[in-house]
Amino acid sequence: MSFSTLSPTFVEEMTQEHERRGQILISCPVFGRPDRADAATLTIVTAGDREVLALMEDLFQALGSDLFHVGDRPSKANWVKILGNFTLGGLLETLSESLSLGERAGINPETLVEILDTALYHSPVFRGYGNLMATEKWDPAGFRMKLGLKDIRLVLKESDALEVSLPLADLIHSGFISGIHRGYGELDWSALKKVRADDSGREENSIS
Amino acid sequence: MSFSTLSPTFVEEMTQEHERRGQILISCPVFGRPDRADAATLTIVTAGDREVLALMEDLFQALGSDLFHVGDRPSKANWVKILGNFTLGGLLETLSESLSLGERAGINPETLVEILDTALYHSPVFRGYGNLMATEKWDPAGFRMKLGLKDIRLVLKESDALEVSLPLADLIHSGFISGIHRGYGELDWSALKKVRADDSGREENSIS
Repeated sequence: MSFSTLSPTFVEEMTQEHERRGQILISCPVFGRPDRADAATLTIVTAGDREVLALMEDLFQALGSDLFHVGDRPSKANWVKILGNFTLGGLLETLSESLSLGERAGINPETLVEILDTALYHSPVFRGYGNLMATEKWDPAGFRMKLGLKDIRLVLKESDALEVSLPLADLIHSGFISGIHRGYGELDWSALKKVRADDSGREENSIS
Repeated sequence: MSFSTLSPTFVEEMTQEHERRGQILISCPVFGRPDRADAATLTIVTAGDREVLALMEDLFQALGSDLFHVGDRPSKANWVKILGNFTLGGLLETLSESLSLGERAGINPETLVEILDTALYHSPVFRGYGNLMATEKWDPAGFRMKLGLKDIRLVLKESDALEVSLPLADLIHSGFISGIHRGYGELDWSALKKVRADDSGREENSIS
């Protein structure tokens, strides 16, 4: 059983190696931090042999409240996990740029997040990351920028193999690389906003 | 009173012209489509003279359920509106790329949207645009790509004046321009996914 965020290609290789040895690999990456595991509210994405998965039911119920089976090849679950983390990277980039511009336009960032969440998103993730950026509380990190870089690298490696063009993923990758060189690698990955705000100046030309 | 999505710079000019003539400009752009106006559930963002705004209370209550006042300069409300539409552009780009890659990896797009919304977003906007892209129902448009281009141009023009760097906004702008040249200008702006999926091929290298 593998709960890790791994490259789908690597999981496919592991699956074939398990098959050669007469073993069965189950992939079950999770969405959620340790507090959600304690509360048994993780989202668990599974892929692999259904009969073997049925034997794990008690374990999954002890950890998660939502269970999705996405196919017989274990790597499929890892695809869903890396795609999910990529979408979070997209949210971070979006918030980083819009809050940086908003601040320069004299819009309070917490107010902006509240209005947009009320008007459009109704999403705890939007509001949570938005407020994290507005208050710049990146230390201690919920998820470190260095791990964000690892995840976006997985996405780029897989998309390159499939010849899929992902301009946003390229841009997030560059953003994390820049952030790490500025010393933000151990901060929360939402410190991407610091990269974007730094690059745009903080004071000059501001509208009050 | 102006309900339109306008450039903050233009609204600032209009405000000064009103002041010269002894008139008062109120800016009150809204979030929401006509169906939300009928149901009186628009989000209305106001800026301008508070005493004049107080006189409009009945009108606002007939149209909206959430009212935010963001400052005395009318242009501030227009800032919030164009920043909000820019974040939607970011969501569209994120979904366009992640669903395009997911399809090539053999992940059903509707399933992917359902899992990620359950695991992470809990957001009707995420699910709504995700399913629109998954089912490719871009005609009739809820909001046309040509209007999306107009809005991202407003963001780029203002950010250029303030010397704020917005790599994601540049990328969305290019995506809409490409889409319009491919004949998608009258489709819903979430047809940005068609641009990204086209550029990555639909069939070759796919994982089944």
